[in-house]
Amino acid sequence: MYLHHHPFCPHSRFVRLLLAEYGLEPELVEERVWERRPGLLALNPAGDTPVIVEAMAESVPGASIIAEYLDETRGLALGPHRLLPEDPAGRVEVRRLTSWFHEKMYVEATEPLVRERIHKRYMSRDQGGGPPDATSLRMARANLRYHLKYIGWLAKARKWLAGERLSQADLAAAAHLSVADYLGDVPWEEDEHARDWYARIKSRPTFRALLTESIPGMPPSKTYADLDF
Amino acid sequence: MYLHHHPFCPHSRFVRLLLAEYGLEPELVEERVWERRPGLLALNPAGDTPVIVEAMAESVPGASIIAEYLDETRGLALGPHRLLPEDPAGRVEVRRLTSWFHEKMYVEATEPLVRERIHKRYMSRDQGGGPPDATSLRMARANLRYHLKYIGWLAKARKWLAGERLSQADLAAAAHLSVADYLGDVPWEEDEHARDWYARIKSRPTFRALLTESIPGMPPSKTYADLDF
Repeated sequence: MYLHHHPFCPHSRFVRLLLAEYGLEPELVEERVWERRPGLLALNPAGDTPVIVEAMAESVPGASIIAEYLDETRGLALGPHRLLPEDPAGRVEVRRLTSWFHEKMYVEATEPLVRERIHKRYMSRDQGGGPPDATSLRMARANLRYHLKYIGWLAKARKWLAGERLSQADLAAAAHLSVADYLGDVPWEEDEHARDWYARIKSRPTFRALLTESIPGMPPSKTYADLDF
Repeated sequence: MYLHHHPFCPHSRFVRLLLAEYGLEPELVEERVWERRPGLLALNPAGDTPVIVEAMAESVPGASIIAEYLDETRGLALGPHRLLPEDPAGRVEVRRLTSWFHEKMYVEATEPLVRERIHKRYMSRDQGGGPPDATSLRMARANLRYHLKYIGWLAKARKWLAGERLSQADLAAAAHLSVADYLGDVPWEEDEHARDWYARIKSRPTFRALLTESIPGMPPSKTYADLDF
């Protein structure tokens, strides 16, 4: 199995966490989506990451579609650790939260953070590169604070974000937070419930690979790889 | 079953088509999402339409989540007319196209068309109301042309957009096009394959309810309800 990804694309990170929970180890192919590589466009006409490729389905593009595909082809094998519950209402809640993080939190917080602070370093001027835009960053950080509170509110009421069991929703929230945490942009001191939940998920062996990642010339925040942050 | 919707929200129209294919007739509750009604926020913290409510799952928010929910709770009963195929690769393709229309076509074309030409008529100045923005409209129309070509390209190569069978992908594309068609913004003469496919789907009895809809003071385009447009 191949995973076409970018190390700081939160949707790609979600899929890496997901694959690790399934015990799958894909070959990683790094993509810079702003270069619009024809090989990536052939796998996914939308031109973005993540995409997985394996014999069974040629190419599976997009975080949510990959999550459904893995559940349908391998979910039963996880037994009680399946990442989507069996009951309809439970599935609705996991999908609702997963899409909340992948769409709302992404657009409002993690996409602008990653774009302004990471991607623009690698883009040419024509591609939209340049110094980070201070207004975008300020808004993204304000929004992140509000998403962190929501995560804390869920973590206080429930064992895991969508209920009694670890689910796709936890992996989605953690993937987005991990990117912001690398950049030192998560105000952990503002929400102990969110922090305790993140400490639990970050300590899982499946998280280890993400914590060793780093960008040349831009080391992670002090707390990034620290399990007792 | 209740469906909280807006008559010109393409995602709501998709769910209405979907429910009709399942033979379900929900009670319709009209929502103006820009008013942020507390009752709607309680059903869907994201505050948008569509949301379905029934005993089995309390509330099911969002077009894609509703589609998965209906397939899981009632898909088998449709037998050979099931709107998601059984094979993993077929499901990936249906979901890929459905999300293409719901996300990409929506953001690039139908959302700005509906916002500028319909919603802004009902919004106060504080809510963002006012005359349509000409630049947004021009871009949305240019993008719609490109989405129509993609639909035509799929319709030429396949019987239905995702393969041999009518699927969620057809209903999604048709829901978005139907809104633009009401406004007279679809350049049908530019793609006969897209037009022939749309004529087929528009002739289904499940489409009838949408074709009788109208906005006071803003009648539909001449071709909107015409099955031989």
